[in-house]
Amino acid sequence: MSTNEAIARRTPRAPGYSLDREYYCDERIHALDMERIAGRKWIVAGHVDQLRQRGDYFLFRIGDESIIVVRSDATTINAFYNVCRHRGSLICTEPAGRVNRLTCAYHAWSYGLDGALLSARLMPADFDRRDNGLHRCHVRVFHGFIFVNLADGDPIDFDASFGELEPYLDFHGFATAKIAHRAAYPTAANWKLVVENFVECYHCTPAHPEFSSMHPAEALVAFGAGPSSGPPEAVESYLPKLQAWEQRAAALGRPIGTIDDGAESSHLRLLLQRTIRDGFESETEDGSFASSLMGKRRGPDQGRMYLSFSPFTHLVATNDFAVLFQFTPRGAMRTDVDLTWLVDGDAQGYDVPKMVWGWDRTTLQDKRITENNQAGILSRRYRPGRYSEHERRVETFQAWYLRELESGGG
Amino acid sequence: MSTNEAIARRTPRAPGYSLDREYYCDERIHALDMERIAGRKWIVAGHVDQLRQRGDYFLFRIGDESIIVVRSDATTINAFYNVCRHRGSLICTEPAGRVNRLTCAYHAWSYGLDGALLSARLMPADFDRRDNGLHRCHVRVFHGFIFVNLADGDPIDFDASFGELEPYLDFHGFATAKIAHRAAYPTAANWKLVVENFVECYHCTPAHPEFSSMHPAEALVAFGAGPSSGPPEAVESYLPKLQAWEQRAAALGRPIGTIDDGAESSHLRLLLQRTIRDGFESETEDGSFASSLMGKRRGPDQGRMYLSFSPFTHLVATNDFAVLFQFTPRGAMRTDVDLTWLVDGDAQGYDVPKMVWGWDRTTLQDKRITENNQAGILSRRYRPGRYSEHERRVETFQAWYLRELESGGG
Amino acid sequence: MSTNEAIARRTPRAPGYSLDREYYCDERIHALDMERIAGRKWIVAGHVDQLRQRGDYFLFRIGDESIIVVRSDATTINAFYNVCRHRGSLICTEPAGRVNRLTCAYHAWSYGLDGALLSARLMPADFDRRDNGLHRCHVRVFHGFIFVNLADGDPIDFDASFGELEPYLDFHGFATAKIAHRAAYPTAANWKLVVENFVECYHCTPAHPEFSSMHPAEALVAFGAGPSSGPPEAVESYLPKLQAWEQRAAALGRPIGTIDDGAESSHLRLLLQRTIRDGFESETEDGSFASSLMGKRRGPDQGRMYLSFSPFTHLVATNDFAVLFQFTPRGAMRTDVDLTWLVDGDAQGYDVPKMVWGWDRTTLQDKRITENNQAGILSRRYRPGRYSEHERRVETFQAWYLRELESGGG
Repeated sequence: MSTNEAIARRTPRAPGYSLDREYYCDERIHALDMERIAGRKWIVAGHVDQLRQRGDYFLFRIGDESIIVVRSDATTINAFYNVCRHRGSLICTEPAGRVNRLTCAYHAWSYGLDGALLSARLMPADFDRRDNGLHRCHVRVFHGFIFVNLADGDPIDFDASFGELEPYLDFHGFATAKIAHRAAYPTAANWKLVVENFVECYHCTPAHPEFSSMHPAEALVAFGAGPSSGPPEAVESYLPKLQAWEQRAAALGRPIGTIDDGAESSHLRLLLQRTIRDGFESETEDGSFASSLMGKRRGPDQGRMYLSFSPFTHLVATNDFAVLFQFTPRGAMRTDVDLTWLVDGDAQGYDVPKMVWGWDRTTLQDKRITENNQAGILSRRYRPGRYSEHERRVETFQAWYLRELESGGG
Repeated sequence: MSTNEAIARRTPRAPGYSLDREYYCDERIHALDMERIAGRKWIVAGHVDQLRQRGDYFLFRIGDESIIVVRSDATTINAFYNVCRHRGSLICTEPAGRVNRLTCAYHAWSYGLDGALLSARLMPADFDRRDNGLHRCHVRVFHGFIFVNLADGDPIDFDASFGELEPYLDFHGFATAKIAHRAAYPTAANWKLVVENFVECYHCTPAHPEFSSMHPAEALVAFGAGPSSGPPEAVESYLPKLQAWEQRAAALGRPIGTIDDGAESSHLRLLLQRTIRDGFESETEDGSFASSLMGKRRGPDQGRMYLSFSPFTHLVATNDFAVLFQFTPRGAMRTDVDLTWLVDGDAQGYDVPKMVWGWDRTTLQDKRITENNQAGILSRRYRPGRYSEHERRVETFQAWYLRELESGGG
Repeated sequence: MSTNEAIARRTPRAPGYSLDREYYCDERIHALDMERIAGRKWIVAGHVDQLRQRGDYFLFRIGDESIIVVRSDATTINAFYNVCRHRGSLICTEPAGRVNRLTCAYHAWSYGLDGALLSARLMPADFDRRDNGLHRCHVRVFHGFIFVNLADGDPIDFDASFGELEPYLDFHGFATAKIAHRAAYPTAANWKLVVENFVECYHCTPAHPEFSSMHPAEALVAFGAGPSSGPPEAVESYLPKLQAWEQRAAALGRPIGTIDDGAESSHLRLLLQRTIRDGFESETEDGSFASSLMGKRRGPDQGRMYLSFSPFTHLVATNDFAVLFQFTPRGAMRTDVDLTWLVDGDAQGYDVPKMVWGWDRTTLQDKRITENNQAGILSRRYRPGRYSEHERRVETFQAWYLRELESGGG
């Protein structure tokens, strides 16, 4: 049975219900997910603060791929497949480091930081080094975030996809932000379960006490899964408070706006700004700052921004720090979940334990939840279940996913 | 190739020989075993002593399934698939515990101990909780043993299958027995190798010194693999002794009888009662009691009962304790082997180390033996081998297994 | 898709390039490799010094097979599949030992050291022990090396394959050599990557400082991957030195000659003799002896012999010790790499750490290199890469491999 047949044979999905079991555990569908979706979207591989000096590199691992992301000069970051053009060996074997050249440890083929093959001993006379540079991976740096795209040919237009995010990213100063902390939460679940978990807040109250303590309950219900994602009465109740905050925040310099991509979009972006708990100035245990104000803020404004670049990459930003979430498929039931805490480029003496308290605990909870979700779905008695009114964003994600899968991505 | 074709392509099995290699390691045949056999038989999941109070539960794991077995009131035990009707998460994640409700830790959908969905926040108006109770698993409590049946529709008739065991189980007082000890011996082998090992005693003398020390050698030869399973001359020699014991035992209240299901039966039951070693009153190292007399015994009678409910569940009972054996397929080459030692409900001060001495050592030996059997069968030079006269019960098991596999179980 | 179709669908391989990805990771191709190549060649399982006394045995594991290699008397070594003819259990479960009989621990079927079934209790009257001896594996002892061949029918003619190696093996005294040390380097890579690594020295300079320190750089370039395998100018430069050495060595009793099988050969043998570093008498860190002269040498001659019996078995011999390399496929991406250091049968007081210094470090380096090669090849961007002039032997190996694979071996 071909992979296309595998898809065609699926029962049509009833709107308002979770996906059939195969989508969460079948190896063939996972291969399609990698080829058609993860392999064609712009995905954040890291932040420029990981690559301060010329020759600094890190590896970004996605599926069976290892991508070398490397700074080749003060203004250029390149991305290459970590596969020597000679016999296919990995070139870089450490997760990160600093190099002058990219030299394969096997036969010493040596590439420049621009990927050009510089030396290869004893090759036949008709061998042309110019045909043997490293395979490039599309890369784009945008406000400090390093996006890669594994497409074989021309990738989706970057500026058309993300250009309008400019003022929001600029306001937070991400281009010059510093990394305060990084942590990994590898999760034994299909990447879609990780995403579905992240894009709804129906589970926040039962599962996330720390998270819930930092947010107004009514905001979680009304906006927890996207703008006006909650039931109408909850939205109606919270909306006036939100609008009042928007006026105050705009007065302090914050650009106000919302982006809420639908299923037909290329990256399913979401931009949502709302308030945190009354009296809180940061998403910390006691609501006080863990660092100094980020970016171009003229003062604290009780706000938080939630920005999804795509289902694979999300940002949450409060007054004094931001968290980058990377969800990277590695296998049919294995997903890398990596968090990066960012602070203002000029921040000094920030308090890392205070800053990570909320999302470290919340992500450990999500890891457990998501792994139990995967385990339960393996039962032959699992049947797609009905979504609540609070899971509209999950439905949108699924509609987007199925459309991408069937259309072949792009 | 479909799974049915996979079966059809097997070479016909020669009577008197072990099965072809594929039956012991092929994933497709294992899937059929789960669907057609393990998924349709009544299998003991545990004993009521594990569920003393309302809300007590334990998980029974078989194949990829997790079944919640829970006491909902003094007289009712329910079994549910451990799969939330919302998004499929596991509901219970600990092996056992006590709960008031079955509440999913993900989105807090909450079910009663009868499986009814009691609360689910923020659901659409047309959502009916009554359609969203937990998926039930057939369950039946019989003399303290909790049987489950994973059949999709009506299961095999329980009473027709096991009703005639009533007097034997009653005699041992299993309904009110207490658990003295439990132990797990997970085994890296196909479940059929575990069963084949257990239903013959051809290997007892070479492999089980402790076991053999507690039994008359002639009984092991004559009856080790079922009533009159040994060679005719051995049966002739032991039969008079057995008949004399039956008279003595009947006088002390023991119901005498034999059940020896053939390949055409639904559960391949076996009931066999015989003597232990002369001078021994219990299956212990020195033959003395490890606990008080079980059930309705009026005195010790040197007897032991071996009762197979099915190839998946077996009981061995001596005067003062009994052992429940559970063989549960988990993967093509992975089987859970779990032993539970039971004593009389009124027993006090029983000696656990003394009681477990025999079967703990014997089961560790069987684990090693069976894993070596699996490893050898992986060779492409493995060919089905000839059975001894002492392995008739293995032949019967195989005939039963092949009939069940081909007929689709039921 | 059948395995034959799997092969047929591969794109034709361009000469001078590494193989397509599938050859290094596809399970179906690996099954063919085992059946058609590893299953039909004469492969060294060990050395007679492992079996000094009657009843001494060791297990040789290849693919899913376990072979018992056992000395049955002073002049006979047998090889049997480690599969009991009764129910298929492994008979020997320790890697090596000494036994009087081969007795299965399961049901005590007992075989002589010649494989004959000696006892099996309680078998039916028409059971004939003579039909139930252990399955034999072809075995041949040649100058101390124990070769096995897993072919179902008649194996390739041994003497026609290896007879001409006689004088070279005799010169080194391998028939009476002693084992000084053994070490295992299990490698997470396809066996062909292990072989390709071993048959070229293009990587020696960058990857193997210890190895390179013991050899003349010009010899590595000119002869590192086989006789005259290097670029013509390098060969021209080294050849006069080699010829001068051949004269000196012949005068000290060494048989001079070269074997360089091509792709159409049955075992792709290679015999190459050349010099080590000037001033060195042994392949040790300081060039001094680690043991006494091996075999029939009349004096040290600065030479080293590299002898491939097949891609699976190689020998490297210097004046005072030799190393046996066994590359044994165990899975599609798993290969056992086992090294055995041999010294003269009369050697006393040899220095093991000194002797193993070079190849232990070099093999650890090769393990890492080869595993990184495998990891890189998993990328969908891996493309067959161009070979250098120094990798001609890899090309020959591949041509041999593809011919064997397509022709069905033999």
